[in-house]
Amino acid sequence: MAKQQNFVEQIADIETNFPQWYTDVVIKTGLVDYGPVKGTMVIKPYGYAIWEIIQAELDKRFKATGHQNAYFPLLIPMSYFTKEAEHVEGFSPELAVVTHAGGEELAEPLVIRPTSETIIGTMYSKWLQSYRDLPILMNQWCNVMRWEKTTRPFLRTSEFLWQEGHTAHATEEEAQEETMRMLAIYKEVAEDCLAMPVITGRKTDKEKFAGAEATYGMEAMMKDGKSLQAGTSHYLGQNFAKAFDIKYLDADGALKYAYTTSWGVSTRLIGGIIMTHGDERGLVLPPAVAPVQVVIVPIAARKGNVMEVCKGIEAKLAAKGIRVKLDDTDNSTGWKFNEWEMKGVPLRIELGPRDIEEGKALFFRRDTLAKEPVALEGIEDEAEAALKTIQKDMLEAARARREARTTWADNMEDLAKDLDAGNFVKAGWCGCRKCEDAVKEKMQATIRIILDDETADKCIVCGEKADKAVIIARAY
Amino acid sequence: MAKQQNFVEQIADIETNFPQWYTDVVIKTGLVDYGPVKGTMVIKPYGYAIWEIIQAELDKRFKATGHQNAYFPLLIPMSYFTKEAEHVEGFSPELAVVTHAGGEELAEPLVIRPTSETIIGTMYSKWLQSYRDLPILMNQWCNVMRWEKTTRPFLRTSEFLWQEGHTAHATEEEAQEETMRMLAIYKEVAEDCLAMPVITGRKTDKEKFAGAEATYGMEAMMKDGKSLQAGTSHYLGQNFAKAFDIKYLDADGALKYAYTTSWGVSTRLIGGIIMTHGDERGLVLPPAVAPVQVVIVPIAARKGNVMEVCKGIEAKLAAKGIRVKLDDTDNSTGWKFNEWEMKGVPLRIELGPRDIEEGKALFFRRDTLAKEPVALEGIEDEAEAALKTIQKDMLEAARARREARTTWADNMEDLAKDLDAGNFVKAGWCGCRKCEDAVKEKMQATIRIILDDETADKCIVCGEKADKAVIIARAY
Repeated sequence: MAKQQNFVEQIADIETNFPQWYTDVVIKTGLVDYGPVKGTMVIKPYGYAIWEIIQAELDKRFKATGHQNAYFPLLIPMSYFTKEAEHVEGFSPELAVVTHAGGEELAEPLVIRPTSETIIGTMYSKWLQSYRDLPILMNQWCNVMRWEKTTRPFLRTSEFLWQEGHTAHATEEEAQEETMRMLAIYKEVAEDCLAMPVITGRKTDKEKFAGAEATYGMEAMMKDGKSLQAGTSHYLGQNFAKAFDIKYLDADGALKYAYTTSWGVSTRLIGGIIMTHGDERGLVLPPAVAPVQVVIVPIAARKGNVMEVCKGIEAKLAAKGIRVKLDDTDNSTGWKFNEWEMKGVPLRIELGPRDIEEGKALFFRRDTLAKEPVALEGIEDEAEAALKTIQKDMLEAARARREARTTWADNMEDLAKDLDAGNFVKAGWCGCRKCEDAVKEKMQATIRIILDDETADKCIVCGEKADKAVIIARAY
Repeated sequence: MAKQQNFVEQIADIETNFPQWYTDVVIKTGLVDYGPVKGTMVIKPYGYAIWEIIQAELDKRFKATGHQNAYFPLLIPMSYFTKEAEHVEGFSPELAVVTHAGGEELAEPLVIRPTSETIIGTMYSKWLQSYRDLPILMNQWCNVMRWEKTTRPFLRTSEFLWQEGHTAHATEEEAQEETMRMLAIYKEVAEDCLAMPVITGRKTDKEKFAGAEATYGMEAMMKDGKSLQAGTSHYLGQNFAKAFDIKYLDADGALKYAYTTSWGVSTRLIGGIIMTHGDERGLVLPPAVAPVQVVIVPIAARKGNVMEVCKGIEAKLAAKGIRVKLDDTDNSTGWKFNEWEMKGVPLRIELGPRDIEEGKALFFRRDTLAKEPVALEGIEDEAEAALKTIQKDMLEAARARREARTTWADNMEDLAKDLDAGNFVKAGWCGCRKCEDAVKEKMQATIRIILDDETADKCIVCGEKADKAVIIARAY
C-alpha cells in the first residue's frame, strides 16, 4: 500500500488536526484554490460542479413554490445602508467600497453588496402599487462580498456565491409562512441531497440578521463536533418596508406597508458536506451531489476485452442518468483507487479479466469502504440501487453520530465538559442577553438554536426559570 | 380596438423612433428596470428567464466540447492589469476601483473585473506544470463591470452578466481551432435559438480585444440597419502566456509558453433578440428562448366548460415540454391579447364556447399575426409543429431582411447612401488604419467584419489595391 501511503500522507490526520485536514482536503482534491487577494477563493471545476448540482436542486424547489429569478445590481449607494439602523450597524465593518470609476472619483461611494435587502427593497418600493401585485416572490443567484479578517475556503471568504430570496407579502401571517417554507426547503435539500442532518429553529436576538424581526437557521454538526450555520431564513416584519417605503394600496383603499422576508444559502454548504462526511482518506460525497457518482477502474486494462466491457458498463450507467467516469488513464490501479477515494466518489466498480470470466465486477463503497461482488448482468440497476443505499446510509450515519453527541447539561461544569467532548449541548436558558453573553465568554460557545419542541426548567447560567430550551455549541 | 390602442400608445413608433421604441419595449414588457446607480440595470424575471434559457443552451454546448465551469474572484489587484500593455490601455478608462474595505484603506487598489484574463492567467500559471495538463478548458458565468458613459439596458451597461471562456493549449493550431470552435457555437445558438442570423469573421486590428492576436466576432443586423456585435472569440497567441508566465514542461523536456484563447457572450444577446424581431406591438420572441411559448386565452371564460377545456389543453402542452401559460385572470380578452402580444409570446391559442362546439381552437402567430383554426383533437402536436415553424420562419425572415439590405459599394458616395438607408455595406479595403479611420470619421460607421469568402479589387477609401472585402455598418 505504498501508493496509498503517498496519498494519505498529503492529508493531515482528521482525528488530531481537523482544521489542517479540512484545508488539505479542499486544496488537494481540487475543490478550490486561494485567490491572489487575501480572503478570496477560486472555485475549481470539481468544486463548482458540486455547486451547480446544489443550485439545480434548490432552484427547482424555489420555482415549484412560485419564485422567479431576477438580477439586481452589484453596487449599492452607501446611503442605502444607513436607512435601516440595525442593518448598517451589522454590515458596516465588512463593506468593500468603490470610490473611483471610469477614471474619476465618485460623488457617492458605492458598496459591493454584502446582501441585497437595501437595493431590492428600493426596487420593490417602485414596483409595488396594489395588493394585486402581492406577493412578490423573487430570488437571485449572485456573488456577495463581506470583508472578513479570518477566512477559510467555503466557510468564510470575502467573496462567496449564494442565492438570496426576497419576498413581500400583504400580511404578517403570509410572510411568516414564507419564512418557514423556505427554511423547510433548505432542510430538505440539506438532508435529502447533502445527506447533512440539520436542526432548524429560531436564532436568538443577538444572533439574528441585522434588521430582521426574527431569524431562523439550520445548524449541522461537523465531524469535530462544531456547528455550521448552513442557511438562514429571515422574517423582516415591516422593518425594511418602512425603511425603503415598500407600500401598497390595499383592497380597502388604505396604503399599507408590506411584510418582507429574505433567505439565503451559499457555497458554505460545500464546506458542510466536506466536514459532515469526510474521513482520513479525504472527501466522501453523497451520490446526490457528487459530480462523479461512479468511477469504473479497469484492472489489467490491456488484457482481453477488459476495456471494452468497461466501456459497455459506462454506457449502460450513463443511459440511466448516472454520472459515471471510466478511468482509462495510464496511472496504476493503486493510484487510481487512491485518487478517486480522496475525491470522494461514492461508488467504484473494479473489473479485471478474471471478473469478466466469472461474469461479475466488484463494488467498492466509499462511505463504508465495503467491497461486494456484483453480477455484470444488470449491473446498471445494481449501481443505481447502491447509490440510493449510500445516500440513505450517509444521512443516517451522520444523524446517528449527531444524536450520540447531543447531550443535556444542567450546570456549567457539565456544559464545559460536553462542549470539550465536541457535543451539541441542550440546556435551559432564561432568555436574557446577559446569560447568553456569559456562555460565549466562559465557554467560547454560542446558543445556536432555540428548540421549539423541547422545554427546560431552569437557565443553565443564572438558575432562574428557563424560558426556553436551546442548543449550545462551538461553531464555524 | 380601443384597448389595443392603449397598449400601442405606450410604445414609440418603431419606424420613426427606433431608440425610444427599444427603451419602451424593454421597460414596458418587464424585461428590465433602471438600477439606482447610473448605468446599471435590474434584470426583471421576464428578462432573466430569457437569460436562463440562453445560458442553458450555451452551457450544454460548452460542456459537450469538454469545457468545465469554474469561478474566479471578482476583485483583481490593479497591478495585474499593467502586465499586458495593450490590455491595460484598453481597459483602464472603464475600471471601477475598490480602495477601502473592512473599514480600512487598502494597500493596493482592487479592480472589479471588466474581464478575467489577468486573474485567470495568474491561476493557470500556478496550475499548469506539464503538457499532460493541457488543454485547460474552463468557462465562468459571472458579472463584469465596465464603466461606460452612455448606457442602454442590455446593450451597454456598467455591470452586465456574461460567460467568459478561457483556454490554454500546447500549440498555436489547437488554440486557433478552439477560437473558431467557440465562434461556431455562438453562431449556432444565435441562429438556431435566437433566430438571429449572424455574419462571423475576423475583426480589424483596431477593433480587436485589447491584448489579443486576433478577434473574431459575430455581427447581427438590427431592424434599424445597425449592426450588433453579439459575441467575440479571441485568439490570444502567447501574449497573455508571456505576461502571466503560463508555461509548461513539454514532452521534449523544454519549458514552453502556452497559447491561450478567450471568448464571451453576454446579456447583450437579449438586446439582439429584441431588435432583430420586435415590431410595432412590442416584443416578438423566438420559441426557443421564449419563457412563455404558448399562451391560452379563454373567450367567455365563465361559459360552459371553457375553462375546463383550456386547462386540459394546458396540461397536454405542458406534458410535451412546452412552456405554456393559461391566462385565467379577470382581465378583458382584449387586454390579454394586447399584453401577451406586447410580451412577444410566439403562439396564442384562443378558445370560446362556439369553438368547443365545433371542436376547434384558433392559433394566432405573433411573428406573422396570422390566425388559423386548429382541431382540438391533437392540438398539442399542432402547437409543437407551429412553434417549430415559427422558429424557422423567424430566422428566415431576419435573414431575408438582412440580405435585402446588404449592398456593395464601390465609392464613398454610394457607401454614404447605403449606410443612410440602413444597410450593411460590402466594400474593398486596402487594410490600412488610415482608411479605416477615414470611414469612421466621414461615415460614423466602422468596419465590422473582414469577409473571408469574398474579395474586392480596390479600397473604397484610397482606391489602392484592396487586400480584403469587408462589411461596413453603423453599430451599437
